[in-house]
Amino acid sequence: MTSSPFSASPYPVIRLKPKANALTIRGGAPWVYSDELVTDRRARRLEAGSLAVLEDSDREPIAVVTINNDSKIICRVMDRDPAAVLDQDWLVTRVRRALALREHLYDAPFYRLIHAEADGLPGVIVDRFGDVLVLQPNAAWAETACEGLAAALVDVTGASTVIKNAAGRARGLEGLDDVSTTLVGAHEGLIDVPMNGATYMADVVDGQKTGLFFDQRDNHAWAAKLPRGGSVLDVFSHVGGFSLAALAAGASSALAVDGSEPALALAEKGAQASGVADKFTTRKGDAFKVMEALASEGELFDLVVADPPAFAPNKQALSNGLTAYSRVGSMAAKLVKPGGYLVLCSCSHAADLTKFRQASLRGVGKAGRQAQIIHTGSAGADHPLHPALAESGYLKAIFLRLD
Amino acid sequence: MTSSPFSASPYPVIRLKPKANALTIRGGAPWVYSDELVTDRRARRLEAGSLAVLEDSDREPIAVVTINNDSKIICRVMDRDPAAVLDQDWLVTRVRRALALREHLYDAPFYRLIHAEADGLPGVIVDRFGDVLVLQPNAAWAETACEGLAAALVDVTGASTVIKNAAGRARGLEGLDDVSTTLVGAHEGLIDVPMNGATYMADVVDGQKTGLFFDQRDNHAWAAKLPRGGSVLDVFSHVGGFSLAALAAGASSALAVDGSEPALALAEKGAQASGVADKFTTRKGDAFKVMEALASEGELFDLVVADPPAFAPNKQALSNGLTAYSRVGSMAAKLVKPGGYLVLCSCSHAADLTKFRQASLRGVGKAGRQAQIIHTGSAGADHPLHPALAESGYLKAIFLRLD
Repeated sequence: MTSSPFSASPYPVIRLKPKANALTIRGGAPWVYSDELVTDRRARRLEAGSLAVLEDSDREPIAVVTINNDSKIICRVMDRDPAAVLDQDWLVTRVRRALALREHLYDAPFYRLIHAEADGLPGVIVDRFGDVLVLQPNAAWAETACEGLAAALVDVTGASTVIKNAAGRARGLEGLDDVSTTLVGAHEGLIDVPMNGATYMADVVDGQKTGLFFDQRDNHAWAAKLPRGGSVLDVFSHVGGFSLAALAAGASSALAVDGSEPALALAEKGAQASGVADKFTTRKGDAFKVMEALASEGELFDLVVADPPAFAPNKQALSNGLTAYSRVGSMAAKLVKPGGYLVLCSCSHAADLTKFRQASLRGVGKAGRQAQIIHTGSAGADHPLHPALAESGYLKAIFLRLD
Repeated sequence: MTSSPFSASPYPVIRLKPKANALTIRGGAPWVYSDELVTDRRARRLEAGSLAVLEDSDREPIAVVTINNDSKIICRVMDRDPAAVLDQDWLVTRVRRALALREHLYDAPFYRLIHAEADGLPGVIVDRFGDVLVLQPNAAWAETACEGLAAALVDVTGASTVIKNAAGRARGLEGLDDVSTTLVGAHEGLIDVPMNGATYMADVVDGQKTGLFFDQRDNHAWAAKLPRGGSVLDVFSHVGGFSLAALAAGASSALAVDGSEPALALAEKGAQASGVADKFTTRKGDAFKVMEALASEGELFDLVVADPPAFAPNKQALSNGLTAYSRVGSMAAKLVKPGGYLVLCSCSHAADLTKFRQASLRGVGKAGRQAQIIHTGSAGADHPLHPALAESGYLKAIFLRLD
């Protein structure tokens, strides 16, 4: 057993202000905001990531929480039983419960294993690539408990390697550094990831830019049914998520467009590993410019997919972001054959489904195309949602048939 | 060619009031409400279901529409080209386009073939059961054009039988009767419908009560993956949609509960046709009472599904409807094994996803269970949405894992 902050029970007590609605916590809310807590000297002295028992203003205990005075989310609910003792076994139990869901739903050990609050481990993200786990401790308690977490992960999954990825933007909000490291074992080189009948290449050490995102798995599968022997244009392709799944499902050709050379190189390696390299081409460049060029070349595709980076990551960026989504919709629609299909994605937290859909359809309309919405997709089941954060589903994919 | 109202061009002209926003129609809106149209004597004289050219208040033509002075939706856009001539070929073209989508997506001819506005045939629903088509003309123009529609359907699909089903509630709002009839050919007896690996029994003549709904197909398939050799409770089962798909996918047992004897009889016939009759049982009765009885018997299931009738079909019924959804969520959650799965559905137009989800999760919480949302489903791709009616997706299915 590795040391973890979970040994020092009984926990200090902190208290909600009278105006804070204790019912929302009792009803399942996972967070307390800084203006809802009595931040007296005692509370302020508690180290970021330490555990405490949260009481309501009538001194009735509500839950075991973790506190971080440096964060706007000052408390995260760890256990809704205020008498719970959060030892190493507690961590193991949470990981085991998360693993049970994934093993129930997936045939191969490639998935998001821990999805933060929804899996009862606030702020913790773990992606599984077979024997290699990538841990993102995006909350102060998880940073402190890193070694205990890694031990629990190895204990439950039997994984050989745990890499700590500290690149998450959320860490800044928690006052955490961005130093990545390997916690258990060692890993070098690429990992073959079998998904939707294709083989993808993940570079888990080099992190996000050339890693692999599991969240689009279901949307890749849905889109792969559409070309039916036709051609695919995959804009903002990253490592070829949509292209390779469509080729594996029988598309005649796929062209992947991305601004990142390393991402396209991984896509090409994936195409080779999937046995579809002869049908796969890439074009490096600015997606907008490439779409414009393709349009002027008169190119048309049976399926066009656009999965851009988050144009509206926060409220300030929303208006410009929606304009960008509209522009993508318009340019992409022009490249779809009559009667063909268009898939538009957004991973912007600030643009909800309604806003993103309106912006996209406005763009499609501007391109002079009429559309039917045939499907709306979101992140897969290995990205479960916490009931009180159900509106937080950031990933949206709209599937259209154009006239 | 059968006669249709589509011959009498040029069409009379009707006009939007100055206050009506012509841009919304030009931007793709499918309807004009009665307070937006200049209803002078000439407009009022137009027969329900006849065609007209809609102009804006500056006398610029916008679209060919159909008018119904008896309906709150006084105009439905038929063609966004104001010069279009809506003859029999026009109908054939629209049906052909709708068929192309379904043939692209489905291997067998069992699906919703026409989904109203989204398929460019306002108010028209057609379900296809192989050689038998069930047509619901739920707008005045479609009632008038019934024979032309049936001819176009036969022409495009080669179907032998077209049954007109006049039971839809929307017909009342259009001032139409409820007299069903057979328009083409003849049909008797049940139809075997292959779907998700099971065989369902559809009684298309006896109509809605014992018919078959295609809209839940994707949700049946998603839920069928969950029991993995475990047990299923299918509450408000109708003809066994969730049960039979789950049994075909390997569930060990399924118990279907419904208040309708004919529906359960069809479910049993379907179980026989699917080769899973030995694992399938039914219980006729009030769903709430049966759930209560099962709870008091201490029964627990690996998967519980509740797909009740619309508890909130309209705004007036919303508050009571949400209470009912909450009650279903609570009673159903109590019947789920630890770590098991719960699927809650709503086909209520008035309860949007957010409201339905909140009510359901409140119920689950009341039952003392914690939940993860692992998937949210809607109607399948044979129920496309019109871009301007994207919020109109009535069918919601929430997939939960309980602790």
